Amino acid sequence: MPDFTKGAAWMDGQIIPVADAKISVLDWGLTHSDITYDVVPVWNGSFFRLPDYLARFRQSLAALQLTIPQTPEEITTILHRMVARSGLRQSYVSMVASRGVPMVAGSRDPRDCANHFYAWCVPYVHIAKPELAERGVHLWISKSSRRIPEDSVNPRAKNYHWGDFTTGLLEAKQAGFDNTALLDHDGNVTEGPGFNIFALKGNTIVTSDHGVLHGITRRTMIELCEARGLAVETRPLPLAELMEADEVFMSSSGGGAIPVTRVDDRVFSNDSPGPVARSLRADYFALLERGDLSQPITY
Amino acid sequence: MPDFTKGAAWMDGQIIPVADAKISVLDWGLTHSDITYDVVPVWNGSFFRLPDYLARFRQSLAALQLTIPQTPEEITTILHRMVARSGLRQSYVSMVASRGVPMVAGSRDPRDCANHFYAWCVPYVHIAKPELAERGVHLWISKSSRRIPEDSVNPRAKNYHWGDFTTGLLEAKQAGFDNTALLDHDGNVTEGPGFNIFALKGNTIVTSDHGVLHGITRRTMIELCEARGLAVETRPLPLAELMEADEVFMSSSGGGAIPVTRVDDRVFSNDSPGPVARSLRADYFALLERGDLSQPITY
Repeated sequence: MPDFTKGAAWMDGQIIPVADAKISVLDWGLTHSDITYDVVPVWNGSFFRLPDYLARFRQSLAALQLTIPQTPEEITTILHRMVARSGLRQSYVSMVASRGVPMVAGSRDPRDCANHFYAWCVPYVHIAKPELAERGVHLWISKSSRRIPEDSVNPRAKNYHWGDFTTGLLEAKQAGFDNTALLDHDGNVTEGPGFNIFALKGNTIVTSDHGVLHGITRRTMIELCEARGLAVETRPLPLAELMEADEVFMSSSGGGAIPVTRVDDRVFSNDSPGPVARSLRADYFALLERGDLSQPITY
Repeated sequence: MPDFTKGAAWMDGQIIPVADAKISVLDWGLTHSDITYDVVPVWNGSFFRLPDYLARFRQSLAALQLTIPQTPEEITTILHRMVARSGLRQSYVSMVASRGVPMVAGSRDPRDCANHFYAWCVPYVHIAKPELAERGVHLWISKSSRRIPEDSVNPRAKNYHWGDFTTGLLEAKQAGFDNTALLDHDGNVTEGPGFNIFALKGNTIVTSDHGVLHGITRRTMIELCEARGLAVETRPLPLAELMEADEVFMSSSGGGAIPVTRVDDRVFSNDSPGPVARSLRADYFALLERGDLSQPITY
């Protein structure tokens, strides 16, 4: 009896326990990080915004010139069946396309590789645990690591090039902070490992539009901000401007809006989550519960 | 009877066929490209400069704050046993250390991961096939992709962040070229996927010292150049200077010195490998054959 308690995976047409899902050490998805992915949340037994995540996944594939046989409809079916089999009702669901292994031994040409698709799901991941989101995240601006520039690796094609984040994260943990955000080479705030960043000043919300993934949760946040009558500006966000904000928060499919109460030595809203960030967090989970943008899974 | 014709791997204390060597789709070595490696050549049944490759591997581990239980002596034993078992007498041997999977479910903290070591070997890889090295490589300077800067990902800690190279490579193949080299954000020539670049002008050889891996074959080339009485300068190499060179060549553990006869629309030395690049290529393989820096494997 396969053990799906830690999650499931779909590989080569089979649904297997996630612990058994492995790829070759020769796969360029690993050895060249030549791979793209997307992550869609499952909440209360339903996918949230699955067509939007699938559309972005297709864009990432096109940007990296990866070709997989599965259509969006087939991927939808695969993801539904896989999560149903896992039994998970709150899940972090990953779809992945990798360059694969060259079909010609010793080839160094990406066009010689057999691209392939796989997927996996695990219990829902909060990128900041709920109790930490309650307290407010302490965010460290990396001093040694700058976000990989757009003309080196396209951040809108969702990718596993996290070396810049990992450096920042190790630095943050060393300094006693919870997480890290990176600046670009012009001193603007970009993103952190797996999240976008928003700054509120007065009635205006700013989030970067460059050097960052155009997150689906970022999009949801922009919609929720507009629904609350806030003006949203997507443009470069200088660090000095972030530091002058009334409130700061992160967005991620792993937790929605996550209040930030400290950035380096700056303390925001009396060291507790600000009212707007709190409201947006509640709005996000209310939207998940309401299911307007959800697709129920048949377990 | 296990099939070692395509190579062997060492994983978790076992030597297995390379086709069976796989890592978890949840390993941060994959999902965050949080991994380092080194590649040592085996030629005529002997490792070349193995202690130097091991020393660099240790430096990469330290730079990434990765900890593995194996000492350099143990790694040496593992690599010898693995290649002996494979039967390969000309081999491309990879040693790898990965961040691993978090021991705490859902953790986003690199310090919670179980770092691990593995290794694999395959038949020797020429990054340019010998007949191509004879003709001379046509190198394309990527127009859309710049080398990931040092303050985003440290190129001296050998890594799998190849997205910038892959973009350049796809562009090069599209344009009918063999391979690609990337510029840094200041317009200097850095490196290509798996090789350093050298430019000869008169009696002087220049190769970049920044934005690049400090390759062991690069080091061997510097030594061979000095032995031939050439002056070696390791410093930024502007593209304009490369284009004015008498000769250009690549260096890699996968082929030694590899003559370049074209860079974009510039043709070098009458479209045939230059005399110095040819001599250095011969010097490199003579050194491999002589075995001064080699460790024989007991098969």
